This record gives sequence, structure tokens and C-alpha cells, in this order.
Amino acid sequence: MREFDLIESFFTPKQVSESVKVGVGDDAAVLRVSSGYELVVSVDTSVEGIHFLPDINPYDLGHRVLAVNLSDLAAMGAEPLWFTLALTIPKVNVLWLKAFSQGLNALAHQFSIELVGGDTTQGPLSITIQVFGRVPVGAALLRSQAQVGDVICVSGSLGDAYLGLKCAQGQMTLANAADQAYVLDRYYKPFPQVALGRALSKVAHAVIDVSDGLCADLNHVVKASGVGAVVACDQLPLSAAFCGVASGLEAVEMALSGGDDYELCFTLPACALKTLAREFKITVIGEVVEGVDVSYHYDDARVNIDCSQGYIHFSDVDIGGI
Amino acid sequence: MREFDLIESFFTPKQVSESVKVGVGDDAAVLRVSSGYELVVSVDTSVEGIHFLPDINPYDLGHRVLAVNLSDLAAMGAEPLWFTLALTIPKVNVLWLKAFSQGLNALAHQFSIELVGGDTTQGPLSITIQVFGRVPVGAALLRSQAQVGDVICVSGSLGDAYLGLKCAQGQMTLANAADQAYVLDRYYKPFPQVALGRALSKVAHAVIDVSDGLCADLNHVVKASGVGAVVACDQLPLSAAFCGVASGLEAVEMALSGGDDYELCFTLPACALKTLAREFKITVIGEVVEGVDVSYHYDDARVNIDCSQGYIHFSDVDIGGI
Repeated sequence: MREFDLIESFFTPKQVSESVKVGVGDDAAVLRVSSGYELVVSVDTSVEGIHFLPDINPYDLGHRVLAVNLSDLAAMGAEPLWFTLALTIPKVNVLWLKAFSQGLNALAHQFSIELVGGDTTQGPLSITIQVFGRVPVGAALLRSQAQVGDVICVSGSLGDAYLGLKCAQGQMTLANAADQAYVLDRYYKPFPQVALGRALSKVAHAVIDVSDGLCADLNHVVKASGVGAVVACDQLPLSAAFCGVASGLEAVEMALSGGDDYELCFTLPACALKTLAREFKITVIGEVVEGVDVSYHYDDARVNIDCSQGYIHFSDVDIGGI
Repeated sequence: MREFDLIESFFTPKQVSESVKVGVGDDAAVLRVSSGYELVVSVDTSVEGIHFLPDINPYDLGHRVLAVNLSDLAAMGAEPLWFTLALTIPKVNVLWLKAFSQGLNALAHQFSIELVGGDTTQGPLSITIQVFGRVPVGAALLRSQAQVGDVICVSGSLGDAYLGLKCAQGQMTLANAADQAYVLDRYYKPFPQVALGRALSKVAHAVIDVSDGLCADLNHVVKASGVGAVVACDQLPLSAAFCGVASGLEAVEMALSGGDDYELCFTLPACALKTLAREFKITVIGEVVEGVDVSYHYDDARVNIDCSQGYIHFSDVDIGGI
């Protein structure tokens, strides 16, 4: 179908950086990785009805599918370089494609990440993006490096995207219109913490992005590092909008189990906090201890947190945990 | 769903090579590209009902989705290194997954290409594979380098996979059972011409893999290189099975427009042929000339070839031609 010729114009980068020897347009892309660096690669699929609602604004969708991948690069402390787009669409809808590509390209421009290849196919709406970044040799931030005595921190605030999803699904309406707009924005347009990730590469021990809910993601860190953790639930960073909806232990459970925040959770020596806190909004929420699991404290008492309402569902469990 | 834990075992490589610093299991993979090499990257999505039939044997599907990506590396003259798998499945079917992973892993092992990451999601069956390879700096084989005076060659034989598809769809049955098995195998289990591609990197000018039918793919070469081509249709390599089904111009049109062959089409100086032909089955089918299009000759007369029955359909048109 010649309509597909139109698509080219939406996804052909105007500028090609020096690291891209061959970009879009041959059997494969040819890319240069500078010496002294390692390549960081992550892939993420978003399926209509599973990872995003069928009525999502295509501009927001374009932003979102790239943002969730950039969040993985952020969690590795990597500098974004390139991405590929595998786009499966049921039919050619030029207005939809234009808006989708605008959302995608705007975020790509903001983070200086360049489209180097892709594939467009017909089928149920689904988007697979693969991102490439680089780190100096040995500088990648892993889940497995948490050390006993580290403080546990989280960026931004937790639980907003969960409320945004509830609002988007029509299951909740916030009393304050500005709050409603805020949580919807947190859900629809996650902001990947790339700058924080790169700053962490000099000081943090273990890093993960909070995509499945802090409860699940912190468990990954603890398991991979062979340590335990204590979380002070009254220290969780919660936005004003969030606090207007829930309080007490209910708020804690929502903030810990709700997904889609795309903040970073990381562990590091307490002495490294001061410099970092000057530039980024980060909150200390706990400590790495000897042990094998995460214990939660609230008002100085240990509490049981029900994280089963979180995002550990079929669609978000990955091959081998990537 | 805990069933997904099972999946891990199917897709976790037993051995990890030195180039993979972090493979499956963190937010992203961390990979080493040796100095003196460039990275070659290609991505390809296969959707049920579009790129493969719903009743395909999952072992063959696992083979096929990786093979079509390896074919792109072959066309660049690249050495395969790593791949990622984004697998979208409607439900967890352990027997299906086991067979799929066996087909995938067997081919991966054969070509020494290593799974380094992926994503498993719920949704309509669809598989996106991204392959990574390497070439010495400057050695990538492009579509755009055909030179006037080059001979045009193709590997293997053409049109078999097209017949295989017709047989698989029940639209055709070959009189000879061995022929039927052969063409079905050509369709279901394409063999990527990686060794030929690497041998070509020293001698060929332009290379493309024949996935959409030679007619369409040779057009890409001509367009990208700014040259013309003359094809001697009576020289096209056709298998005995194929010749049992069609002859004359009908056979020529089927062989030129049928897709899924995953052979290589390439141009090079005639003097380079002899050495190459000792090791690989290759056939000279024409010559690169000055001009802007491809002319087809049969029995010493110019003929019009109807390539519109080929694979230039919605599902196979790629972003920007990749």
C-alpha cells in the first residue's frame, strides 16, 4: 500500500549524528560505539488494552512508549543514543500516525535519542521500542549491588500514576481539577529520570526504575543483591494530589503497589546524599540491612503491606526479569 | 501470573559469552563492542495471520522469526552477536512455548547468536526480534554501492518459498511428495546466508536479502545506487521442485515476485566470482548498467514482468525501508 510511503516522513530523522553511519533505509543500521564505553540495551512492548487504554491520545502514546524505555536506560545510568521502533497498526490512519510520531519525536529530541531503524507491520496495535545507550566501561548501575548500611532513596513522588490510571479508566474523579490533571499527566506522560540516573552512576550502589510498584521493584533489588531492607512508610514521598485522596496505611499500600511511576529507586552511602539532593528531588525511605526480604514500618511499628494489588500481572512479567 | 516463571527457563541462555557483561535479568543488557568494529542492528516483527499462518508449528515459528532477522545481518556482511526477543502471547501455553523456544534456541546456537534480553507481554500473538552483529569498521555491505559493470548474482534458488506458502495455505499440492516437503521447508525454515554475507564483505559492492521477491528487492538496490540493471530471466536459479510446477514466463514471474526466499542478491565485479563460486551456490542473473530501472530479458527479447503479485503488501513495508 502506497499509503505507507507517508509513514516514512513521520519517522525519518532530519539530522543524523556522527555515531550513526547508516540509519533508516538499508537492511540494518550501522552504528559506532566509542571506545571506552559499553552498550546498554533495553526492549519494551506496549500492547493496546494491556499497557495503554484504547482511547489514549496518540501524541501521549508516542511519548509514553519511548519514556518507559528511556526509564530503563536511566536505571542503568546510561546516556541515551539511539532507538528502533517496531510499530504494528491495524490500518493506516494518517492523523493518528502524525500525532503519535510528534509525541515520540518530541521526547526523542528532548533526550537526544535518535531513531535508527524500525519495522511497520499490520496487526493489532502494539509498539516495541528498543533503546540503546552507553556507559563508561564498568559504570553501569545494576540491581545487584546494594550494600548493607546503604540508605534507600526514591525520586519524585509515588502513586500518582496509579491514581492517574484510575481517573483515566473512569473509576475515580478527584475533587480538585488541577489535581486530576496532574495525576492524569503523571500516568500518560511519565518523565524518565535520565539526568538523575547519570548523576547516580558516580555514587549509587543499586538502581532500579519503579515501573511495577516500589514494593515489587525493591524486592528485585533485595533478591539480586542478597540483602534485606527496612522501609519507613511514613517517609514515602506523596504528592499533595495523592494526599487529597488517601491517607494512613491505605495511602501507603497504594503508593507501594501502584505502578507506572517511572521514578528511580536506589541505594547509596548516606554521605553521598547531600550533593545529590541539591540537584534532584530525592527522599530517603529506608535502609539496606542484612537479611533476605523487605520489612515495612509505620509509626515505629512493623506493618504488613498488601502489595498484591500491584502490577505483578501477566502483562508486565518479563523474560528473565529484564 | 506465576506461570511466567516457567518462561524464564525457556529463554535464559546457559552460557554467556565474554561480550555480554550483563545479559537477561536487569533493567537492560550491558554489551561490549570490540574496538575496530561497528555495530549492525536490525529489527523485524512477525504478526500471526500476516507473517505466519495461525497453525504454524511453534518450533518452525521460533526458527523462522530469528532466521528472517539473521538474513538482514547476512545482507550487511555482519557477524551475528546478540539478539533480543519481544514476545506477545495471548495466554501461557507451556508446550507451545517450549517448542517455540527450542526452534529459536537451535538456530541461535547454530549461528552463535546469544539472547541478551527481552519482554514478554500479553496480547495477540506477535514476535519482534532485534539482532545485533558486527562488521570491521567500514566493511558493512550496503544497498547503495552497486556499480555499472558489476554482475548481479543471487544465491540458492528463487520461488520455492512462494510455492511452500501456497502449499501451506492448501492452495496447491505438488505431485511429488518430496518436492512438496522441500518447498514447505523452504517456506517454514528459511536458512539465513550469513556465511555468504561475510564472504561477500571482501568483494561485493551492493547486497540485499531477497525477502519481498527479487523484483522488489532489486528495485531497492537500483534506486539506492542510482543505476540501472538488466536481468536475464532464463538464468534465474530454479529448483527441480519449482520447475515441476511452472515453466516459461509464468515461472519467471513467480520466481521474481514471490517472497520469503531469504537468499542474497548482490552485485560485484565479474573477476571476483570464481573464488566465491567454489564455496557457495551462486548464479549470475544480470548486469548493472547505466540507467534508473530494471529491464528483464527472456529468450533474448525484452519482456514486461508483472511483479504486482509479489510481497509489496501492507505488512511488509518498513519504516524508511529498513
